[in-house]
Amino acid sequence: MAEGRTRRGRGGGAARRAERSAVSLEVAKYIERQIPDLEILNDEAIEIIEANADTVLEEIGVNFTENPEALRRWKEAGADVQGERVHIPKGLARELCKTAPSRFTQHARNPERSVEIGGRNLVLAPVYGPPFVRDAQGGRRYATMADFEKFVKLAYMSKWLHHSGGTVCEPTDVPVNVRHLDMVKAHMTLSDKPFMGSVTEPERAQDSVEMCEILFGKDFVADNTVMTSLININSPLTFDRTMMGALEVYAANNQAAIVSPFIVGGAMAPVSVAGTLTQVMAEVLAGVAYSQLVRPGAPVIAGAFVTSIDMASGAPTFGTPEAAQVTLGMGQLTRRLGLPYRSAGSFCGSKLPDAQAAYETANSLNTGLLAGVNFMLHAAGWLEGGLVASVEKFVMDADQLGILHGLARGVDVSDNGQAMDAIREVGPGGHYLGCAHTQANFKTAFWRSGLLDYKPFETWAEEGARDTQALAELRVATLLEQYQAPGMDPAILESLNAYIARKKETAPAAFA
Amino acid sequence: MAEGRTRRGRGGGAARRAERSAVSLEVAKYIERQIPDLEILNDEAIEIIEANADTVLEEIGVNFTENPEALRRWKEAGADVQGERVHIPKGLARELCKTAPSRFTQHARNPERSVEIGGRNLVLAPVYGPPFVRDAQGGRRYATMADFEKFVKLAYMSKWLHHSGGTVCEPTDVPVNVRHLDMVKAHMTLSDKPFMGSVTEPERAQDSVEMCEILFGKDFVADNTVMTSLININSPLTFDRTMMGALEVYAANNQAAIVSPFIVGGAMAPVSVAGTLTQVMAEVLAGVAYSQLVRPGAPVIAGAFVTSIDMASGAPTFGTPEAAQVTLGMGQLTRRLGLPYRSAGSFCGSKLPDAQAAYETANSLNTGLLAGVNFMLHAAGWLEGGLVASVEKFVMDADQLGILHGLARGVDVSDNGQAMDAIREVGPGGHYLGCAHTQANFKTAFWRSGLLDYKPFETWAEEGARDTQALAELRVATLLEQYQAPGMDPAILESLNAYIARKKETAPAAFA
Repeated sequence: MAEGRTRRGRGGGAARRAERSAVSLEVAKYIERQIPDLEILNDEAIEIIEANADTVLEEIGVNFTENPEALRRWKEAGADVQGERVHIPKGLARELCKTAPSRFTQHARNPERSVEIGGRNLVLAPVYGPPFVRDAQGGRRYATMADFEKFVKLAYMSKWLHHSGGTVCEPTDVPVNVRHLDMVKAHMTLSDKPFMGSVTEPERAQDSVEMCEILFGKDFVADNTVMTSLININSPLTFDRTMMGALEVYAANNQAAIVSPFIVGGAMAPVSVAGTLTQVMAEVLAGVAYSQLVRPGAPVIAGAFVTSIDMASGAPTFGTPEAAQVTLGMGQLTRRLGLPYRSAGSFCGSKLPDAQAAYETANSLNTGLLAGVNFMLHAAGWLEGGLVASVEKFVMDADQLGILHGLARGVDVSDNGQAMDAIREVGPGGHYLGCAHTQANFKTAFWRSGLLDYKPFETWAEEGARDTQALAELRVATLLEQYQAPGMDPAILESLNAYIARKKETAPAAFA
Repeated sequence: MAEGRTRRGRGGGAARRAERSAVSLEVAKYIERQIPDLEILNDEAIEIIEANADTVLEEIGVNFTENPEALRRWKEAGADVQGERVHIPKGLARELCKTAPSRFTQHARNPERSVEIGGRNLVLAPVYGPPFVRDAQGGRRYATMADFEKFVKLAYMSKWLHHSGGTVCEPTDVPVNVRHLDMVKAHMTLSDKPFMGSVTEPERAQDSVEMCEILFGKDFVADNTVMTSLININSPLTFDRTMMGALEVYAANNQAAIVSPFIVGGAMAPVSVAGTLTQVMAEVLAGVAYSQLVRPGAPVIAGAFVTSIDMASGAPTFGTPEAAQVTLGMGQLTRRLGLPYRSAGSFCGSKLPDAQAAYETANSLNTGLLAGVNFMLHAAGWLEGGLVASVEKFVMDADQLGILHGLARGVDVSDNGQAMDAIREVGPGGHYLGCAHTQANFKTAFWRSGLLDYKPFETWAEEGARDTQALAELRVATLLEQYQAPGMDPAILESLNAYIARKKETAPAAFA
């Protein structure tokens, strides 16, 4: 695991103050798996699902709504277009997907933070989309821009998050038509990790591209991928104008898009795992193929966000076996397409960062690692079915992500890993704590939580018998106190501010 | 999944009362995996570790302490015995292991609860050994016989626990030299699931066998396995008189033993995963081989209890990547031996049933399923590094075990599973909730927690904003209120009581 350390000084008294409180930021490289994937579909199951997905695309087709240009593209590519319904002949979508790269680099403004998405890699990004936030002090409330910035800072300081994400929460105190400007700027200025662009209108995607041109330079953006953005499919089998418009902007600019259904099983897809996989496969094939119709070779990630449902209440449920099976199965199907794969996350339905939240989250995170996921959105901070971003859960989840790094590393069978000298030295009835091999290896031998309680019972009781949420609350406070923004060229910051000011001037404030 | 329902009535007014509050007990069959194992060791790693384990057995050897009969058996089998050190020539232990069955049936007094241990199966049993208990009302305190009985009742009522376990907690209010009598009787009378015998002295193992002869009949016990008991190896590489004495009793009586090291990594084994696997492999080979020297064909389970350690505090740590790697690797090595495998559990270091407990537990439970574990001791109720048995965590963990059942079932690709009719019926932009396929399948489509919160935020808030522990507390109370002992032949109960009374009369009370 390559790790970089950054320590930034400043001039004069600020420099001395910064020095005293300097935080040494350690950021792990994205995960490069040395362990196999868990493959739960056998060859027969794969053949059935792939054939069924092709049947769905040809016989049932998909809708591209309010998008004549998309229909034109599909017709030209050989699809049978009836009204807004696109019937895609068997094999065509799969053929079109072939021009999509199997892996690509998303550049960060700090080159050490650039990520390679695809192959055996796993890139971890924060929660996306919650309109509410929760913290131990303030409870649950609508999210604001101040909350948004808090999450960007926490992601920046996390050792195990490789990506700054996108809509870490919805800053409801900023008008919706200019909100994206402040959000993208926060990622650009408060972090140096890679980030996502806006997708809520095609124009906002264009603004995101233009802001990147200021940050990275126009030439650099023309030749390189600097954003990975989230394009949701309206399941079942529908591609709406807004999302496709954003996809078109990003693909045309060679920026990456995650093309992903957002499915509550039993509502937007069949109640069976194989049926859901069939539909997700059809949707992903159509969406990725469309990105390649816009621009062959545009980087794209095949996504699958699928929850199960509590049929008694209609609530989405998380960490369940059916959700795991879809995530694992879709990993197999996506690898056969040769595409990077997005799925899993810190999913839970719990209202609090309690045991339920942690069981469900751990089930999902582990599944994501074993499913061969390449880009894991929502890897930290998700609460209450995604309605809430929790700062305490954010640091709790982020800590757990270290476990995925360790597990993915596989087993070292070098001479040092074999430890035969240690076994010989200690012998029957002996003790390893003092032996030479232990002394040489103890610092890196075992993953250690940066948050959880490992203290003796008596110490823990004396210190107030704190539960995980209380420990997380302390950690959040420490991190935010120690936060220092990564340095930025003042000329770039000025240009960004000017761009945003100009955009805000011409846009009438709107909250819907 | 085969499921049995039992409903027991009684006579007169008691019968009517029983009828009103009758609990319909649903117990799932043990897990029969339809999904593959996760194999993290490649062929080279396996060869290295197996060869190293053979080297350890031959060159370093193992100690059988204060046990001249064991040394005699080893010498006769061809080992080089030097004092209490047994050097086992390469290949000999593996050869001796071949007479151990690859799977066996452990009979329960209710034949529907008998379990098949080995192959692709997974049998789940409760926590074992904690001297303390914790509950939400009473906090943490020494365990008593009343606590012990509570856990046996909760395990009996759990849908997902297949086994009643053994020392679900240490009843410290009963003298240690007769404690085992009350414990075994509790399993026999308060539950009808299979259970474990005493191992703390060879004589207590013999008492356990004799009590089984009363319960099952002497002839039945002579021909069948009715107990699976836990024999710990004193790592590194030491087999003490007490544990081996109990093993000798059980093997001689054709009763099953789990032969298992109990390792805190870095203390009782090297700090590396490959080194730990080497030592565990050597220990298991020697222990299982010894069981076959006592009685060829005696049923035995190869075990691996391995935690990681926090090198800063010396505390054992749980749910870590290194623990997972040992569990997964040992699964591969055990399958090559053709032996049933015991590992994993609801492991955690947390003092409370909070998020830490759940993250760590979920990591361990999932690992156990994917490692091919056949017998999972500690599958519910473990807290604080095994020092504490928690009633709330017991029902929380037991609920999560349902997820393992669902995941292991694999993906249904029958016509109904494929759900093509549903996809055709609903079409682009439609909704699955009302379609025929959903109506036909919704009851069994998704796993549903019997404990966790799936309610809308407002309802949840109105009902007191309960966290998982609070929900678990309610569930414990409900289960214990509804508990009814399974029926038992009064003559057998009388004989058991007479046996215990006789034993207690002749034993002076002792607490150490």
